[in-house]
Amino acid sequence: MNSDICLLSHAEQALRLSRIGVSEPTLVCDNANLFYLTGRIFSGYVMLRPDAEPVYYVKRPVELTGAGIRYIRKPEDMGADFPGGIERLALETSSLAYGDALRLQKALGAREITDCSAKIMAARAVKTPAEIEALRADGISQSAVYRRIPRMFTQGMTDIELQAAIEYASRLEGCLGIFRVNGPSMELHMGSVLTGENADTPSPYDFAMGGRGISPALPVGASGEQIKPGAVVMVDMNGCFNGYMTDMTRMFVNAETADNLDPMITKAWHCSRAICSRLAADGKPGTSARELYETALAMAHEQGLGAYFMGHRQHAGFVGHGVGIQVNELPVLAPRSKAVLAEGNVIAIEPKFVLPGIGAIGIENTYVVTPSGLECLTNAPEEITALT
Amino acid sequence: MNSDICLLSHAEQALRLSRIGVSEPTLVCDNANLFYLTGRIFSGYVMLRPDAEPVYYVKRPVELTGAGIRYIRKPEDMGADFPGGIERLALETSSLAYGDALRLQKALGAREITDCSAKIMAARAVKTPAEIEALRADGISQSAVYRRIPRMFTQGMTDIELQAAIEYASRLEGCLGIFRVNGPSMELHMGSVLTGENADTPSPYDFAMGGRGISPALPVGASGEQIKPGAVVMVDMNGCFNGYMTDMTRMFVNAETADNLDPMITKAWHCSRAICSRLAADGKPGTSARELYETALAMAHEQGLGAYFMGHRQHAGFVGHGVGIQVNELPVLAPRSKAVLAEGNVIAIEPKFVLPGIGAIGIENTYVVTPSGLECLTNAPEEITALT
Repeated sequence: MNSDICLLSHAEQALRLSRIGVSEPTLVCDNANLFYLTGRIFSGYVMLRPDAEPVYYVKRPVELTGAGIRYIRKPEDMGADFPGGIERLALETSSLAYGDALRLQKALGAREITDCSAKIMAARAVKTPAEIEALRADGISQSAVYRRIPRMFTQGMTDIELQAAIEYASRLEGCLGIFRVNGPSMELHMGSVLTGENADTPSPYDFAMGGRGISPALPVGASGEQIKPGAVVMVDMNGCFNGYMTDMTRMFVNAETADNLDPMITKAWHCSRAICSRLAADGKPGTSARELYETALAMAHEQGLGAYFMGHRQHAGFVGHGVGIQVNELPVLAPRSKAVLAEGNVIAIEPKFVLPGIGAIGIENTYVVTPSGLECLTNAPEEITALT
Repeated sequence: MNSDICLLSHAEQALRLSRIGVSEPTLVCDNANLFYLTGRIFSGYVMLRPDAEPVYYVKRPVELTGAGIRYIRKPEDMGADFPGGIERLALETSSLAYGDALRLQKALGAREITDCSAKIMAARAVKTPAEIEALRADGISQSAVYRRIPRMFTQGMTDIELQAAIEYASRLEGCLGIFRVNGPSMELHMGSVLTGENADTPSPYDFAMGGRGISPALPVGASGEQIKPGAVVMVDMNGCFNGYMTDMTRMFVNAETADNLDPMITKAWHCSRAICSRLAADGKPGTSARELYETALAMAHEQGLGAYFMGHRQHAGFVGHGVGIQVNELPVLAPRSKAVLAEGNVIAIEPKFVLPGIGAIGIENTYVVTPSGLECLTNAPEEITALT
């Protein structure tokens, strides 16, 4: 094991720091941000200051080494390094607990707390070449799992049984299982497999699709419903193999061939795929995220599918979202977004429909924004695939 | 699906509220606390006031019904219900983000923020009869999975392959997969399977055992190391089948029989089991949590195992912990704990050792505190079990 606290090269870390643009003392402790700044998870804090090397205050694990590392038992142990206190201390106010923020303010003698969450999220939205390589590797692993899905299915299976089989295959492929989400409340276990009417059950979260879940303790996704002959199945499973995650959705049908589908299914699937293609062609550095959403919505309406776009009984308010260390990063392709795409953004585009009486239909791919357009990182076949 | 916002009976909810002892306006939004107060997860808030029925402010899902429900789009929509503001507003300051707390304070016109996290955690530590039944059911399901572990093993497997097989079996048994943890930073996917030296790798968290993990993005637990012939394997996997979770650890050995083990292994296992038995006999309402820890530590020292107790290169600072909706509830059996056991506490006791060159040894059971002592909820055989 490499015991150096920072697993990133100096140049890679410097690039990430320059994107954050540290302008005041900034204390970071959110796991996703620690991973961004060091390439590893530990328990503790990174103190960033303008024109200074990072200082790593570590509680656990023991035995880490490297420049700038200082072991502490509790936040108050950092105080000695700031004898005169700090005028303004930037903290992750969108994830750090209120009580912890006040404790850190006191421990470091800070007169004012400011926010660094937004700034770091903005920096993380523009992936470095090394991060794009990690996401590319994820896309390859996730695609390998998806290609094997028909072989995991046996007649009579429920949605949760198929999901468990995909989870198992994913874990054997190297998937970490965890699913890092920005914000405290969104919970999901490794993704979602939806069949039939269940897709139309509203969920607590702003996810593209719903689902009742198997317990009111986790009311989202697969519900234990059998995958009926002829039924379509939407698979949107975990793509986190190395700390970064791609996001991909594919459609399957419980039939020997996908040639004789209900015309509504075919129409919705074609529309989803057409939206992906169109947005992939339109999306370039400088393209408005709002306009991409509007294009997608207009294409859904043109096909008479507007009422089913991104849900039916409950609608999600976006058609795409950044992905990276967390599954819901920036930019968001949404009606009121002010974002424009930048080179290095990595976004999942997921135009999906819920057709009453039929279920969830649509595909999703993860793309990196390049000067010449969107490059797809999730290259599994997009066709609706027969399961039997 | 029951669309009533509160899935608990009125009497059950009233019991839980009486244990919290609401003395000022209290706004709850942490998922674990929402589940405690309503029996379901939703996106929104519960407002508790002394001598008043709860009010449920719901963002998602749509279509919930029931007394006291009010749909909102954003926190500010609650403001109209508090035209004169609020003197003191109790919030979950140990989990609610700093920025969200300030936003809620402003939205409700609160002059002061106080904490309700500690009070709710204290209430949740004393399980109601209905909660104990849920935990009892969990223990039965988790034990059923554990009994099948030898059949999941094949020679040549790695630790992560065995873990993935146990995860798969757990999911088919109804395990929800998620693992609710109190506090923002502790991450783990469905538990831990440790073999050989890997157990001694320090982890970022205050877990009983370490492990390198398969990525610096999740540096804990199984590392991809092969389970060698003769090697012991410690299994500490997810017991969350209904929103509550039992916690159980068992030992296995990659051999045809467990009769010819290294004497150090046998000694550590006997010591672990003896500590469990002794603490189960000593633990009654009124017993000091600190004294239980001291008893366990003394028993480890008596056997010459003190240096390996609860870790070797890195030590965990407890021998047991409350479990329920989250895996790390109150009380904690630790050196400086001031807690005394109460009837209805549910605690996992996990006296474990890391023996250099050998690995992790020990068992763990979940117990409910009854007037006559601790009753075990995790009734799988405790013997070291041969895998082949």
